[in-house]
Amino acid sequence: MELNGIYRSIQDDLSQVKESLRSIIKVDFPWLAKQLDYVVGGGGKGIRPALTLLSGKFYQYNLKYLLPMAVSVELMHTATLIHDDAIDKSMSRRGRATIYKLWGTEPAVLLGDYLFAKAGEFVADTQCPRVIKLFSQTLATISSGELNQFFSAYNLKQTREQYFKKISGKTASLFSLATESGAVLSGAPEKSVKILRDYGHYLGIAFQIVDDILDFIGTEEELGKPVGSDLTQGTLTLPAMLLLERYPEDNPVKRRFENKEDHDNIQQAIELIRNSPIVDECYAMASEYSARACQKLNGLPEDSSRDALLGLAQYVVARRK
Amino acid sequence: MELNGIYRSIQDDLSQVKESLRSIIKVDFPWLAKQLDYVVGGGGKGIRPALTLLSGKFYQYNLKYLLPMAVSVELMHTATLIHDDAIDKSMSRRGRATIYKLWGTEPAVLLGDYLFAKAGEFVADTQCPRVIKLFSQTLATISSGELNQFFSAYNLKQTREQYFKKISGKTASLFSLATESGAVLSGAPEKSVKILRDYGHYLGIAFQIVDDILDFIGTEEELGKPVGSDLTQGTLTLPAMLLLERYPEDNPVKRRFENKEDHDNIQQAIELIRNSPIVDECYAMASEYSARACQKLNGLPEDSSRDALLGLAQYVVARRK
Repeated sequence: MELNGIYRSIQDDLSQVKESLRSIIKVDFPWLAKQLDYVVGGGGKGIRPALTLLSGKFYQYNLKYLLPMAVSVELMHTATLIHDDAIDKSMSRRGRATIYKLWGTEPAVLLGDYLFAKAGEFVADTQCPRVIKLFSQTLATISSGELNQFFSAYNLKQTREQYFKKISGKTASLFSLATESGAVLSGAPEKSVKILRDYGHYLGIAFQIVDDILDFIGTEEELGKPVGSDLTQGTLTLPAMLLLERYPEDNPVKRRFENKEDHDNIQQAIELIRNSPIVDECYAMASEYSARACQKLNGLPEDSSRDALLGLAQYVVARRK
Repeated sequence: MELNGIYRSIQDDLSQVKESLRSIIKVDFPWLAKQLDYVVGGGGKGIRPALTLLSGKFYQYNLKYLLPMAVSVELMHTATLIHDDAIDKSMSRRGRATIYKLWGTEPAVLLGDYLFAKAGEFVADTQCPRVIKLFSQTLATISSGELNQFFSAYNLKQTREQYFKKISGKTASLFSLATESGAVLSGAPEKSVKILRDYGHYLGIAFQIVDDILDFIGTEEELGKPVGSDLTQGTLTLPAMLLLERYPEDNPVKRRFENKEDHDNIQQAIELIRNSPIVDECYAMASEYSARACQKLNGLPEDSSRDALLGLAQYVVARRK
């Protein structure tokens, strides 16, 4: 299923989200405007704001509050990416040079802070203390998750449980913020709020597993960044963990983590993973989470938004970028 | 006047603020707890949370909302300091090694983000969309002000107007958030809200001018960091600007900005400024802003808090650290 089809019922409102993001460009500083234009012009898939809007469709679809929430979620996402790129010293994302590459660490840190602040302004416009608190809690979860990832870099002794905890913090938490806030702001009953929060959580886990698979099996063109970036940064993801389980002794991931200079090992790990059942195993896990997400939706009213959320759950597993 | 005396009427509540800050330490990650203990144990002067509490004393002193606000203001301040130190590559602050020095740029960025998030959680506990929005707007002002400062580093062609705009963004905005939010949360009438906002603004300007003077005339022990840090980082502050105006041609600040390697010039600039009327001129300006802040308070009810705020206005000019 194509994203355009999934987004059909919220297309106009999603355009308004993008319009709002662009409006942030109009600030006092010409040099900042240039940076922000670059950032919001980057063209993500818009999954997170779409989740907020779609989750808000089941009850009272009140765009006055859902719109700033959707903008806020996308801004928080953008800000974390800018900080992540500075931390990982990533040179490209979505096929373009990162802010870090273009301007360096310092402006990347400050620009990220600025966008967090703007996200906070938008979420304040929801006038809803509950989602405002949720927003801040999510940012705390994401940044402590990233700290966790940073301090566990190049550590070979990570369990699957730790992996799922990590991706839950760094990715699924924002997905469930997007869905839960949409539900809360549309006056959904608590039962439905929980359903949509859980849906967002499982979808986020599936999304991140696929991200971690694509980092091995995608092309640089599809990924918009070099293949094998996670290993380059010392991040142990699910495919690499399964490879370590399969070959605990002589293993290119192990060699790479023990000798950061040896870049040949990354290529070897990529080849080994591509030519093994590991990719299928990982996809099976992603599909399981995607299926759990879909199952949750049974408790919601039948609606075109429910179909869209089901479509999104299929999309995140099938996507190539 | 000593800070202890100024804080007398809010001493117990200020202790609660510090208790709340310490409670943040109790998080899931032992390594993060270690970092946070270090941060909140750093012992700032607590001027910003004191401003919120004192500003909340004129009408309905509701600690349920004033307390999280005061904590939030101090957390935002701490987070910006951690990011600033990473950006400026500062090795010491308040006489201790910075997070940047101890753990590097990456954890400093993420820890700052984490504390911004925690600040957001506390401000959400005020349940007041107006101060929540104000909080985010202030963070946007501070970070765009810092971006401004970063991009104008080593630029000799800065006007006094630009200087005041810069310190207004990076310092006074947080002071006026502290006072304005205290007023709003205590149900102050709009006229008093404006008075306290303006007081905070002028106090913040005076505070930063004195900070910029002390960077030249203080001792490393008083400052808790090396003397002349601003020049080292290419930041043109008021004393250096006045020195440039006085000696436009042969000037150590000019030489330093044109040749970053030449460290002798910093020492020369410090000596020249110390032995000139520039220090007095700068103090006169700081006192003028402090007086403006005091003048504003005439419009408020006579109260022990008003005396405390008057005392604080004297303190910020007289302080040596």
